[in-house]
Amino acid sequence: MSALVPMRETRPLANAIRFLAIDAIVRAGEGHQGVPLGMAEIATALFTQHLKFNPADPQWPDRDRFVLSNGHGSMLLYALLHLTGYAQFGIEQIKTFREMGSHCEGHPEFDTAAGIEVTTGPLGQGIANAFGMAVAEAYLNAKFGDGIVNHHTYAFVGDGCLQEGVGQEMISLAGHLQLGKLILCWDDNRITDDGSTSLSISEDVSERFRVAGWHVIEVDGHDIEAVAAALAVARLDPRPSLLACRTVIARGIARLQGQRGGHSGKLFEADADAARNELGWPHAPFDLPRDVLDSWRDAGRRSQAEYRDWHERLAALPADARAEFERIQTGRLPDGWQRGLDDYRKRAIERGEGEGEAGIVISAEINDLLAYLPERMVGCADLEAPTSHKRSLHAFNAEDRSGAYVHCGVREHVMGAMANGMAAHGGVIPLAVTYLAFADYERPAMRMAALMGLPVKFVFSHDSIGVGRNGPTHQPVEILASLRAMPNMRVFRPADAVEAAECWVLAYEHRSGPCTMVFARQTLPLVRTRHEPDNLCARGGYVLAEAEGGNRLVTLLATGSEVALAVKARERLQQNGIPTAVVSLPCWDLFDEQDDAYRLAVLGANTVRIGVEAATRFGWDGYLGERGGFVGMTGFGASGPAQALYEHFGITPAHIVAAAKRRL
Amino acid sequence: MSALVPMRETRPLANAIRFLAIDAIVRAGEGHQGVPLGMAEIATALFTQHLKFNPADPQWPDRDRFVLSNGHGSMLLYALLHLTGYAQFGIEQIKTFREMGSHCEGHPEFDTAAGIEVTTGPLGQGIANAFGMAVAEAYLNAKFGDGIVNHHTYAFVGDGCLQEGVGQEMISLAGHLQLGKLILCWDDNRITDDGSTSLSISEDVSERFRVAGWHVIEVDGHDIEAVAAALAVARLDPRPSLLACRTVIARGIARLQGQRGGHSGKLFEADADAARNELGWPHAPFDLPRDVLDSWRDAGRRSQAEYRDWHERLAALPADARAEFERIQTGRLPDGWQRGLDDYRKRAIERGEGEGEAGIVISAEINDLLAYLPERMVGCADLEAPTSHKRSLHAFNAEDRSGAYVHCGVREHVMGAMANGMAAHGGVIPLAVTYLAFADYERPAMRMAALMGLPVKFVFSHDSIGVGRNGPTHQPVEILASLRAMPNMRVFRPADAVEAAECWVLAYEHRSGPCTMVFARQTLPLVRTRHEPDNLCARGGYVLAEAEGGNRLVTLLATGSEVALAVKARERLQQNGIPTAVVSLPCWDLFDEQDDAYRLAVLGANTVRIGVEAATRFGWDGYLGERGGFVGMTGFGASGPAQALYEHFGITPAHIVAAAKRRL
Repeated sequence: MSALVPMRETRPLANAIRFLAIDAIVRAGEGHQGVPLGMAEIATALFTQHLKFNPADPQWPDRDRFVLSNGHGSMLLYALLHLTGYAQFGIEQIKTFREMGSHCEGHPEFDTAAGIEVTTGPLGQGIANAFGMAVAEAYLNAKFGDGIVNHHTYAFVGDGCLQEGVGQEMISLAGHLQLGKLILCWDDNRITDDGSTSLSISEDVSERFRVAGWHVIEVDGHDIEAVAAALAVARLDPRPSLLACRTVIARGIARLQGQRGGHSGKLFEADADAARNELGWPHAPFDLPRDVLDSWRDAGRRSQAEYRDWHERLAALPADARAEFERIQTGRLPDGWQRGLDDYRKRAIERGEGEGEAGIVISAEINDLLAYLPERMVGCADLEAPTSHKRSLHAFNAEDRSGAYVHCGVREHVMGAMANGMAAHGGVIPLAVTYLAFADYERPAMRMAALMGLPVKFVFSHDSIGVGRNGPTHQPVEILASLRAMPNMRVFRPADAVEAAECWVLAYEHRSGPCTMVFARQTLPLVRTRHEPDNLCARGGYVLAEAEGGNRLVTLLATGSEVALAVKARERLQQNGIPTAVVSLPCWDLFDEQDDAYRLAVLGANTVRIGVEAATRFGWDGYLGERGGFVGMTGFGASGPAQALYEHFGITPAHIVAAAKRRL
Repeated sequence: MSALVPMRETRPLANAIRFLAIDAIVRAGEGHQGVPLGMAEIATALFTQHLKFNPADPQWPDRDRFVLSNGHGSMLLYALLHLTGYAQFGIEQIKTFREMGSHCEGHPEFDTAAGIEVTTGPLGQGIANAFGMAVAEAYLNAKFGDGIVNHHTYAFVGDGCLQEGVGQEMISLAGHLQLGKLILCWDDNRITDDGSTSLSISEDVSERFRVAGWHVIEVDGHDIEAVAAALAVARLDPRPSLLACRTVIARGIARLQGQRGGHSGKLFEADADAARNELGWPHAPFDLPRDVLDSWRDAGRRSQAEYRDWHERLAALPADARAEFERIQTGRLPDGWQRGLDDYRKRAIERGEGEGEAGIVISAEINDLLAYLPERMVGCADLEAPTSHKRSLHAFNAEDRSGAYVHCGVREHVMGAMANGMAAHGGVIPLAVTYLAFADYERPAMRMAALMGLPVKFVFSHDSIGVGRNGPTHQPVEILASLRAMPNMRVFRPADAVEAAECWVLAYEHRSGPCTMVFARQTLPLVRTRHEPDNLCARGGYVLAEAEGGNRLVTLLATGSEVALAVKARERLQQNGIPTAVVSLPCWDLFDEQDDAYRLAVLGANTVRIGVEAATRFGWDGYLGERGGFVGMTGFGASGPAQALYEHFGITPAHIVAAAKRRL
């Protein structure tokens, strides 16, 4: 499909990568040479003969995706971006490797405009992201056809990524889903940071992939043509492919190659000099011979005809299909998309207080209203979703790529990382659904979403001791705090159907970072009894019920299922002549962004403030002030009926009233 | 080795389990019948023919361990404990299944005195705990010989546990370590809570185990004698064994068996009646025929001769070996064990302020002093440890079980869960070591340690932006807060060599729960310049330097590497005539346990309090009060030299001084 770079020229091309990495690492005084020196030939084969990309338009939607899952080898990526002509990676930038403010950071940091598809470093995340990209590609391919979406996803991967549980989950699920356009190149160098891989693994990794339904090719990772040929075979196979590339870590540094120190042992100028002699590279540091650079730049232009053809096909699409494709690429929602949710709010209030509904049912009803959004995909870890019931979405599987519902099995971690990969890919709004008690299982992926600012919705059910008799393992008490502690992660815990609709609007509209959506298993009685045109949750916290009969003396602050308890407590306090307000705080992150005057007005200056949440106090003190109190959990939960647990742990209107009175 | 229960009697034995489970679940109105009904025959084979145990002494050190990794099937365990005669599980207790205060909780909760080896429910944890138990057994066997430690570890496991990444990590590592006494019984029922396993997995699970070096036997899980025979073979094989037991979920409930609803669909009395007819079980609910119960009680007494023989062998041990064995069983440390650490404190102060040492080196030095403790085992995820350098511990591996250092590979999650299993096993004090940025990878295991109150030490290096140029993926900013939020988890972040020694003393002495030990990669200059006989860290926080020249106006509160910055800031404030104290807060959990008077005296009533930590503010407000300020991170880090990052993010003495002055 792409013109071959003549073979005699390829070895210098690989060495160009190798010496850019050596020179940058020597200059920085630290770095990880193992990957760029060990995978230089593999990268040369991929980038000069297979990868579909356009350095002049790094965000071309139908480009092949390339993920450096072993992200500590970041100089490999920076060298490739420099050599193929990405504007942000000029040679001066390469010289700033690992300096403050450099684009050449210690690990690659997500910036698709610059050519970096995803942040990598925490092991296993990158290959799981790549898997998510391949899922998104297959789904969009089914929607828009081969002419518009038809690309591969390549990932480079080291032993560490494959040892990690999330990597193993990915192997199993990608094999199950038979994602034929996903191709991994494994840097089989038999060394990790700790020493020989034989210290910690004995299994035949290739066989492990084969068991999971992968196509595996074993190849000499330093033979460019062999790797290129293997990639050609991999691209034709309907299964996901592993190229098991036998390599020598840090190849070219005589003192370290093939050894533990190859990973990141310090490189000195003498090492660089020796490598220059050994490999016949007489050029000065950062100096690339013209013909080599020209060949690389030619490689960077290899896909130009495909790029033009693709744009012609896009232009030829029917107007509505084209508009839809372009819309979902931007992440913009259709005009008026939230109208159905506004109506839902109104209907909830018209239905009246009544019995309320389970939090997870409310969330499912709301998401059912959005089933028309083609860009929405739901990953679910062994749970009927508090998002969209399966009735409104059908399964994405090996036979049918049009389904928007991915059964992830009991694999929360890869589910979260898959969602990140989908969001990084673009064209898809991913949701990842499981129980809140198991948020910790996907937390490393959630952190990556927050760090990258990816618009993933992490959705959780069973959010407190309200889970009931499944007991403390299944009852989150500290997990809200641990998620609120995460920068750039918006955590929403709505109190009723109205707040749930408002929070979902805010979540879908938030595009610069992930959201955590938390829903009770138990019934959420209606606490918002009057329709408001505004989205009251948009400020994160608001006065749900103002004090009456005098200046406010007490402010009850609550979230989620405990707002209804605060409302009941307020009634009693008001009956006792104590003017009391209830503040609902569905999203602390948004509330903290409000100005001081608003926050203080809501929190109630000089009032006794009582926080109410069926969770631990950690993180609440900033709102409560020095006179404040807290009604909630002080440790893990217990096994018993939900109502009995609330009584047992003293999270009741009576306890709230008592806590307030004690402080007056 | 044990007398067989005659075959004709075994089917009623399995049905006794089945009907106890059905009756308890019908009574409770909810439960998970899938496992107890599907695994009743497997459990009968194991408990009546193989398991070495003594219900009269559930904590017999050399008992076989039994872990119900699919813990949602808890009624299987409670039924077995009842049938074999554990005192805490009388029939009245069984009738309280899932009620508040019952020992028969929704999921099994750790209580070795009652016969529950480990809390299970979060999937994958149990099998990884079992793996840790098998590691502990092999290690102690090498120390004390076959006569004293020589038992198997059995775990029941469902599809969910095997899909989880932690389960996959366990398969790989247990195969590598060739733990021949670890035997899993897989409930191969092809159903998960979400539906058929074919929704989310295609691989041949048995083959996956074989690739990892396991011995696999496929067997009909409803054929008691076949399972018993397979267990006999498994016990003889030098490899870890998987019994792949083909089963029918919820077998016996005609309406649900073999179907998704078998997992936990509601059972009604009519279902129980139908099952009674179907299986020829005419007995009333909770009523067991005398002969069946007698057979089960006989099974519970099967190991009595072995039990007596074992005690005789223990009594015959040389006195010192016996004393040591008995000491490590209790978890008690040898008298005067901390003397070396006290000396270390003194020496650190005598060495003087100087340049200080890297936090991780300090921790390694301290732990090197403890290499004489035979009960200490270190699991390490691809990192030279900030605990004991490898020089003082040799590797535990397939050939040599005497090593106390387990190379876990890049598998943090199974490392943590392994440590939990070791601690639950007893006789071993486990440490689990990795980078703090990757604490999230083992967090689900850390939560289980906290919930169970297991004395595991979770040790972390590279604790802040001080990591430097590896960038934000590798820089914890929110992770301290997320761990402090966890109930029953003591988080220590020492400021220098003296505090490190004190914190390690506290960690080793803490036996009712886990500790998190956090160390800086960078140098920790000495801040404790005067030797104190007391362990000042024991109260969690203390005045490191009192204000001088008048009433204290400012209190600077800091932890870890930022204490030295606070000390410098104090000097400047004092020079400006502002009496300022520095408070070190190495362990919030311990500080929060102190009485109000102590805490207020330390925090400084009516002073301006400034928190200083290279982490986010979340959780600090309770200490800072309404006038307080915070110098730290507001989001994720960046890639650059450590010192430049501290400057960039404004975590410097100058910023601390300015923050204090602004509030005076």
